[in-house]
Amino acid sequence: MIYLDNAATTKPDIRCLNLAEQYLIENYYNPSALYAEGYNLHKQLVKTRSDILNLIANDWDYQLVFTSCGTEADNQALFCGGKRGNVVTTAGEHSAVFNCASEFKERGIEVRVAPLNDDGKVNIQSLLGMIDDRTSLVSVIHVNNETGAINDVNGIAQAVKAINSRALFHSDGVQAFGKIPFKMSADVDLYSVSAHKINGVKGCGALIKRKNLIIKPLICGGGQENGLRSGTENVFAIKAFEYAAKSKYENIQLNYKFAQTLNAAMREKLDGQFFDIISPADASPYILSVAAKGVRGEIILHEVNDKGLIIGTGSACSSNDKKRYSRVILACGIDEERADGVLRISFSAENTVEEVEEAANILNETVKMRKEIME
Amino acid sequence: MIYLDNAATTKPDIRCLNLAEQYLIENYYNPSALYAEGYNLHKQLVKTRSDILNLIANDWDYQLVFTSCGTEADNQALFCGGKRGNVVTTAGEHSAVFNCASEFKERGIEVRVAPLNDDGKVNIQSLLGMIDDRTSLVSVIHVNNETGAINDVNGIAQAVKAINSRALFHSDGVQAFGKIPFKMSADVDLYSVSAHKINGVKGCGALIKRKNLIIKPLICGGGQENGLRSGTENVFAIKAFEYAAKSKYENIQLNYKFAQTLNAAMREKLDGQFFDIISPADASPYILSVAAKGVRGEIILHEVNDKGLIIGTGSACSSNDKKRYSRVILACGIDEERADGVLRISFSAENTVEEVEEAANILNETVKMRKEIME
Repeated sequence: MIYLDNAATTKPDIRCLNLAEQYLIENYYNPSALYAEGYNLHKQLVKTRSDILNLIANDWDYQLVFTSCGTEADNQALFCGGKRGNVVTTAGEHSAVFNCASEFKERGIEVRVAPLNDDGKVNIQSLLGMIDDRTSLVSVIHVNNETGAINDVNGIAQAVKAINSRALFHSDGVQAFGKIPFKMSADVDLYSVSAHKINGVKGCGALIKRKNLIIKPLICGGGQENGLRSGTENVFAIKAFEYAAKSKYENIQLNYKFAQTLNAAMREKLDGQFFDIISPADASPYILSVAAKGVRGEIILHEVNDKGLIIGTGSACSSNDKKRYSRVILACGIDEERADGVLRISFSAENTVEEVEEAANILNETVKMRKEIME
Repeated sequence: MIYLDNAATTKPDIRCLNLAEQYLIENYYNPSALYAEGYNLHKQLVKTRSDILNLIANDWDYQLVFTSCGTEADNQALFCGGKRGNVVTTAGEHSAVFNCASEFKERGIEVRVAPLNDDGKVNIQSLLGMIDDRTSLVSVIHVNNETGAINDVNGIAQAVKAINSRALFHSDGVQAFGKIPFKMSADVDLYSVSAHKINGVKGCGALIKRKNLIIKPLICGGGQENGLRSGTENVFAIKAFEYAAKSKYENIQLNYKFAQTLNAAMREKLDGQFFDIISPADASPYILSVAAKGVRGEIILHEVNDKGLIIGTGSACSSNDKKRYSRVILACGIDEERADGVLRISFSAENTVEEVEEAANILNETVKMRKEIME
């Protein structure tokens, strides 16, 4: 089976699992416990927070709060940051941010959604035009999970602060962390990351926040995570995340270049008479959105699945929405006819060029056959 | 090492881990994905929800929402149930319920806290007296996590509904599920459970709710868990929970009797000149709260830890509160002098009578020596 749906989830790195396994079996204690075994885990988690943090920020200015997933980190950022007035976000957000809108409306907070350019990036001029004195939070996705479009979050954050220095700036970095070389600038207040998108395990994410920013917990209770996220720490998943994140950052440039190679191979091998490329040239090399011409994406997904290839249509998460067309793809100015054929091919540094070439052949053949049947 | 802090967390059942391991490694797909591998996981989760549910309720009247932990389940029940007027709860709640009070106050909702009897159970008359037409939620812990005191939640729920049929009734069942033979009656609307207290792994809990009860998600996004909890499902932890829960319920009567044996052995062997028993005779046999006479609990905890015994003081979770005396123990009418010596000894069916007898000897010797030094 060739797995090219790495933006949905990744296969956990067996080396990281082997290292983390002790925290599942022998070292299973509660890190809040006062005896040596518990306190030892507590100390290890302090270091793990700092180690992960230092990969993209620094532990002098920022602090890291472990959550159960990227979605929870996004929700905490939004609901703790967006407290009054209005919240400004984009049409390219993951549903973990986008679908907070209805709750905001119930709380009497206006949500303003900036449109996307055709390349899938937010239209910065529109976004900045929506910010006023009453804006409490601005949230802009770093790497779009469907098209791979990269927003310059440090630059946008700086421009946001120039208009309203009290507005908090959040970015969903789930598809960027461990993949795109990046350091958070001081204008970014909140940043969400996830473990299972970088070969960690499911059940662990983190919210990175400016240390001097006072926010409330989303989940109250025993006061774990410095009072910002209660619930017994998922030590095994956290340690697996640490190992996976360190491994990714050690090889980030190398992996990035390799993802470019994989992405370029797919772009080159896909037959232009069957496929349109949607992702812009400067998108994250890890994500390639293409549209099959005149064949539904979901049909192709199932047919190539039978032939040993796994790819996605839009976001896996949005499959629960039961909507036919991807909200994000339509926001990129793609019409419904093209949107109907959209497929998301997403890479990992563990894929090979041979796999990608084979995948392209399967895709070309499948659309060709399907079109012949339809004619 | 003798581990008698099973109310804080338990050692995962290696048989369950072996069964669940495939969901960590080979079967790592995203259950929201549309291809066969994703959809297969989706179907398995439907069955897992129903299987766990049927252990204490039935999947005709109730539905189960997987969360990342018991604390999250409690928070979802409270914040989605307690929407207006007042919320009535008890002085014996876990901090996952108790510490939601400040957020309620901010939302303009009054929190009324019923006192405990000396046996650690809620004073039912006081509780019922606090309920009025404006009560939107009543939350009563099933088994107290510090004393093991058992509240008759089905009976209390019925009495609550007789006063205000529109008030929702929630119970935190984290220390009851898989341990205390119990079936939810129709008067219980919401019930929280956790995996890592019954030899599952950390990172998984569930909120059980009446099916026709409409509640909001605490975490918004991709719409997983029938729209009630977004975020990629932690399939490995969920499957480990299923296996652990089924194993516990298959042996629930046998385990309960064995916990009674362990509990009785400890009560018998602890030297009455050194220790007071706090837990009432009809408490959960899995939890035994005792007070060392004239020696601080935390000192004993560390000294017995050096001798190969692990026990707790109050709740592990409340260690983050940095308070000297346990709120729950004081609410049982224990004075500060006795509260200072409180230890929590908590059993699992995996413990042995020999371990418990050895533990009692270590405890007796430790307090004896400590008192000799102090004299």
